[in-house]
This record gives sequence, C-alpha cells and structure tokens, in this order.
Amino acid sequence: MTDARAGWLPHDDLEQARDRVPMVYVEAFPVRVDDRGVVVSVGLLLRAMPDGSISRAPVSGRVHYGERVRDALVRHLEKDLGAMALPQLPTAPQPFTIAEYFPDPSVTGYHDPRQHAVSLAFVVPVSGDCVPSASALDLQWMTPEEAAGEGVAVEMTGGQDRLLRLALAHVGVLP
Amino acid sequence: MTDARAGWLPHDDLEQARDRVPMVYVEAFPVRVDDRGVVVSVGLLLRAMPDGSISRAPVSGRVHYGERVRDALVRHLEKDLGAMALPQLPTAPQPFTIAEYFPDPSVTGYHDPRQHAVSLAFVVPVSGDCVPSASALDLQWMTPEEAAGEGVAVEMTGGQDRLLRLALAHVGVLP
Amino acid sequence: MTDARAGWLPHDDLEQARDRVPMVYVEAFPVRVDDRGVVVSVGLLLRAMPDGSISRAPVSGRVHYGERVRDALVRHLEKDLGAMALPQLPTAPQPFTIAEYFPDPSVTGYHDPRQHAVSLAFVVPVSGDCVPSASALDLQWMTPEEAAGEGVAVEMTGGQDRLLRLALAHVGVLP
Amino acid sequence: MTDARAGWLPHDDLEQARDRVPMVYVEAFPVRVDDRGVVVSVGLLLRAMPDGSISRAPVSGRVHYGERVRDALVRHLEKDLGAMALPQLPTAPQPFTIAEYFPDPSVTGYHDPRQHAVSLAFVVPVSGDCVPSASALDLQWMTPEEAAGEGVAVEMTGGQDRLLRLALAHVGVLP
Repeated sequence: MTDARAGWLPHDDLEQARDRVPMVYVEAFPVRVDDRGVVVSVGLLLRAMPDGSISRAPVSGRVHYGERVRDALVRHLEKDLGAMALPQLPTAPQPFTIAEYFPDPSVTGYHDPRQHAVSLAFVVPVSGDCVPSASALDLQWMTPEEAAGEGVAVEMTGGQDRLLRLALAHVGVLP
Repeated sequence: MTDARAGWLPHDDLEQARDRVPMVYVEAFPVRVDDRGVVVSVGLLLRAMPDGSISRAPVSGRVHYGERVRDALVRHLEKDLGAMALPQLPTAPQPFTIAEYFPDPSVTGYHDPRQHAVSLAFVVPVSGDCVPSASALDLQWMTPEEAAGEGVAVEMTGGQDRLLRLALAHVGVLP
Repeated sequence: MTDARAGWLPHDDLEQARDRVPMVYVEAFPVRVDDRGVVVSVGLLLRAMPDGSISRAPVSGRVHYGERVRDALVRHLEKDLGAMALPQLPTAPQPFTIAEYFPDPSVTGYHDPRQHAVSLAFVVPVSGDCVPSASALDLQWMTPEEAAGEGVAVEMTGGQDRLLRLALAHVGVLP
Repeated sequence: MTDARAGWLPHDDLEQARDRVPMVYVEAFPVRVDDRGVVVSVGLLLRAMPDGSISRAPVSGRVHYGERVRDALVRHLEKDLGAMALPQLPTAPQPFTIAEYFPDPSVTGYHDPRQHAVSLAFVVPVSGDCVPSASALDLQWMTPEEAAGEGVAVEMTGGQDRLLRLALAHVGVLP
C-alpha cells in the first residue's frame, strides 16, 4: 500500500507518474553570508547525476505528495548537508526563479533525462556545520568569483551552471 | 496509448498520478492597466469549482507533461478568456508567489479536495477583448477596491480570496 | 564643514536637499520565524511620527550619502531594536516593494508631510533580544492575524498599515 | 525660485543636493519579447557617460522631486527611445534589483564619478518603434547571447555590464 503522506512510493508507481505529469522539485544553493547579508561563498555538492556523470550540483530533490515546499526544502537540506547546517529558510514562498527540466535539452536548456521537472529554486544561507551526506561525495565552498568561473561551469550538468549564475545574479554577486 | 506530449491522459492514469505526486498548476489574475502600468481593474471568472460550488476564480489549470510553464499560461488564458485577450506574458519566469493546495484545508489555507497542487501564480495584463469560454460562466471586471472587499471574498473558495489579495498587494493596489 | 561620509548634515543643508530631491529611505518589518521560515509574529514600534501622532510603525530611516543600503538597514535596525537583535539581513538587494511617500497624500497613499521619500521595504527575521531604543516608545510583537486587523491599522499613519499588509502578503501570511 | 514639482533645479541647487544625499535613479533595459513573453533581444543606447566615455548603456535618469517612479520611467523611456516605443510598464513597483552607484568604484562595483545614486532597475518590453533621441547617439538591438558577451561588456562602464547580466538572468536568458 502506498503511504503517500510519507512520500514513499513503490518504484513502479513513481515511474508511471513520471511518464505522465511534471514532477515538482526544490533546489537550494547553500551560501555563507557576512554580517551585512552579503554572500561570501556558495556551496556545491559533488554527486552522481541522473545522466551518469559526477557533477557539481546544488541541493535538490522531489516534493512529496502531501508535503509543503518548505518541508521538502528542510528535508533535502538536511539530507545533503547534515542536521547541523542551520539553514535560514526563506520567509517568502516566492522562489528566485523556476527551472524547467526536460528530457529534451533544447526546450529550456535545463535537462533531466529521467523526467519533466518544475523546480522551485532558492538561495539559502546556512550558519552551521555542513557535512555532505551519503548521497553526496563532497561539498565544496567557493567564492562567487570562483563559482561563476568556467572551471566550475564545465563540472556542472543539466544546465545547472546557468541556474548557479542566476542565483549569484539574484543575490548581487555575479561578477 | 498515452499521448503524453500533448498533455492528454486517460482519466485513470491522471487519477493514479494525482494520488501519488503533487500536480503542477499555473494561475493568472488578468488585469487592465493604465498607460503607467497601474492596475485599474482585475478580472475574475465565475466557474464551477472542484468543491462543487459556483465561485469567482482566477484563470487556472494544470501544466502538462512536456509543456513549458509559459505555454501552459498561454493555453489556459486562451481557454478561459478567448483568443483575442492579448495577454502580456511575464518576461521573468519568477511567479509572484507559490500557492500550495492540499486536500486538507488546514495545511496552508489553500484547499483542493481532488489533489495536492503546487501552483505558480502570476498577474497578467490583457489589452484585448476577453470572452469567457465554455468552462467559465462569466467574467467580471472590478476595481482593486471591489476585488479586495468582503463581498468578493465570500464568493471565492479554496483560499483563492487570499491569493487575490496577495496579487493586489504585489502590484501595489491592495487598499 | 559637511562630514558627508558620516551622514551627518547641518540641519539647514538637509532641509535644502529635502525641498529639491527625493530622499532615499529603508524600511524593515522585523519578524520572528519558526524553524521552517514561517513568520509567526511581526514587531511594530510605537513612536512619534513626522505628522505629530503617536503611531505603530516599522523600523525606518534615511540612507546617508556614501552609505550602502545594507549598512543603512543595519544602522536603523540597531538604532530601533538595540544591538542584540541579531537580524538576518536579506541576501538579495531586491526590496519586496518600493513605497513612495509624498507630502500630498493623494499621489500614492503613502504620506510624509516633511518630504518626498522613496523607501526600499524589507522583511527582516530577527532571532535575538529586541529592546526598543530611545527614539521608540515601545516595541510590540503580534501575530500576522493581529497585525492585519483593523485595530492595528487605525494606530498606523502615512499609509504604513498598507505597507504592513503588503509585507504580510509577501511572506504568505496575510489572512 | 525653484519649480520643484517640475523637477527643474538651478544647477547649483542640484549640485549642493548631490554632495549631501543619495540621488534616486531609475534604469530600464528595453527588450523585445515573443508571443510567449520570452526576451528575444535587448536594446542598448550608445551615449556619452558621466565618466567621459562613449558607452553602451540602458535607459537611465533621475527621479525628480514630486515625481512617481512610474512617471520617471515613462519620461526617461520617452526621452531616450522616442514617443512611439510603446513600453509595457511594470505592474509591480518592485524593481528586479537595486544598483548602488558610488563615486568610489570599490564599494559596490557600480560607479558614478558625479554622485551617490540609488537606482531602481527594471526590464521593460517595448512593442513600438524606438528612435534614439538627442541625448543618445545610437540604439542597438542584440540577442541575449550577444548582450552577455565580452564584446559588449567592454563597451559598458560604471558596472552596467554587470547590471545587464543581472537583467538577462532575471528574465531567464543569461546564457
């Protein structure tokens, strides 16, 4: 039986839904800020991606049936950064952008071979200790300048380098 | 066979997906603006709602598998307002808010008895002729003051009176 | 001599500028949030206003020559809430709205008898102890429902009750 | 006597104010959009800048005493693009960012040798004929890819190439 409220789905059921409707995702770029709120560094995970590559990526994951967007954000931040990251969740439900991932990379530039996903993207300051969890191989902090550089862009996939530049622009630190 | 790209789904397939994952929706409040961009009136549809009531409501509908949010917005605006409405689609993909509808009205205050829906909400200026389509019984234009009044609020359901006030606030005309 | 960098201006010089150009202001609604980022209470100061009334008001003040908006926000938050308020400054420089105050109340509904002010408005979570300073008579925390009520609205002036409702709407808690 | 309402100020009076308080500015990137609201080209003026260079620049100018931000936007759009540009003014008063220009380029990266200016930045779709006015030497339309390129960046000054990339990011077309 499907315990939908808990978000757990038999593999086949999720696969069937994936072929029929867009999935709702959240994405979060964890950042460190100074005492004026200026972003001084951004954290990127190193993880195995849906396309099989090992890539730098933001915190990301599906919103479950019955789950609020805020709760999904907290769950994925905890899953990827550990329980001591102390994220400052956004007060406003408005994401800084919507990234639309399609199996066909030509539609929007955001690409996910598994599914059509509509992703609500946030920048989330964290003030605690971040420890990459099992699903992530590493977590690296870098300055906005480093993050916007070509070296990082080539290590990202699915158009997420573009999403990262948008996030940096939104917080006023895109070089 | 499922013609997923066209968004059409056998009834049972859609119902199965609805029980398993959140649905992606778009909502749009059509508005008339003056030559300075100030909202002078807002349009509300009169329609049969999922809860069985006849209610005032914004343009609203599901985003299909494989469909961009912009295309879903255009499709639903055309479906509800006709082909001559001349909507000015938002240049930025950022919605003014995210409304999360749950079968349980107590979670967020936004309520849909059929499903969990994550709705991207927009304010869309229209400059052409709007003709309510088959699915809507009527379209009424009102001033921001009228729209924010108690008389309209009681004619809306599912928490959409709150979404309307948020839209009015966003464009700076909430009294 | 004018020590412009420090923001201090001889009274006459400021008065002259006030008659000639719009002043730049910042306004901040301090809020308490739960561990999901949901706003649970909003703080309003009780203070003597430019129009002579004793009113409920947000943190507010002028941006000095040579001062960044972020630094003005920190300065006014500290001045009004004390040094231990621990505000979480916004990472993005984008205010949730612009409030335009005019000597003539009919222009925008925002009214300041002393000047034309263009005010950048923010919602700022605070996690520390807030102690209203000399310039404020009191600081009162209230729920979003209380804050949006008629009782509070009549205790605010200059259109700031409207700005408060917009702030509540922006963070998704306008009833 | 100062006819403040009309915005006209004796040169000395404006200079005095400029040394004492931040000036309020508006900036607008005119764009062409397709029928889905996607930005397909962005217009940049060629003009003589405060630092003496001939540079590519957005529509830009001061907000007068007594003037609403919307009216300043319309006035400067008309001044720079002519009376037939048919701009679609933003419905929401929220700018996509605030650019803070300082005489000292190191403070924010936005630089104006004449003054401290706080600039409200907007993206404005135009559907009519744009004719650069007397104060602009030329108006050039380019694709988002061209606009984000290094060739354009070196032709901009005062940090406005960064503001342009932020604008492109905001509307989802930063490459």
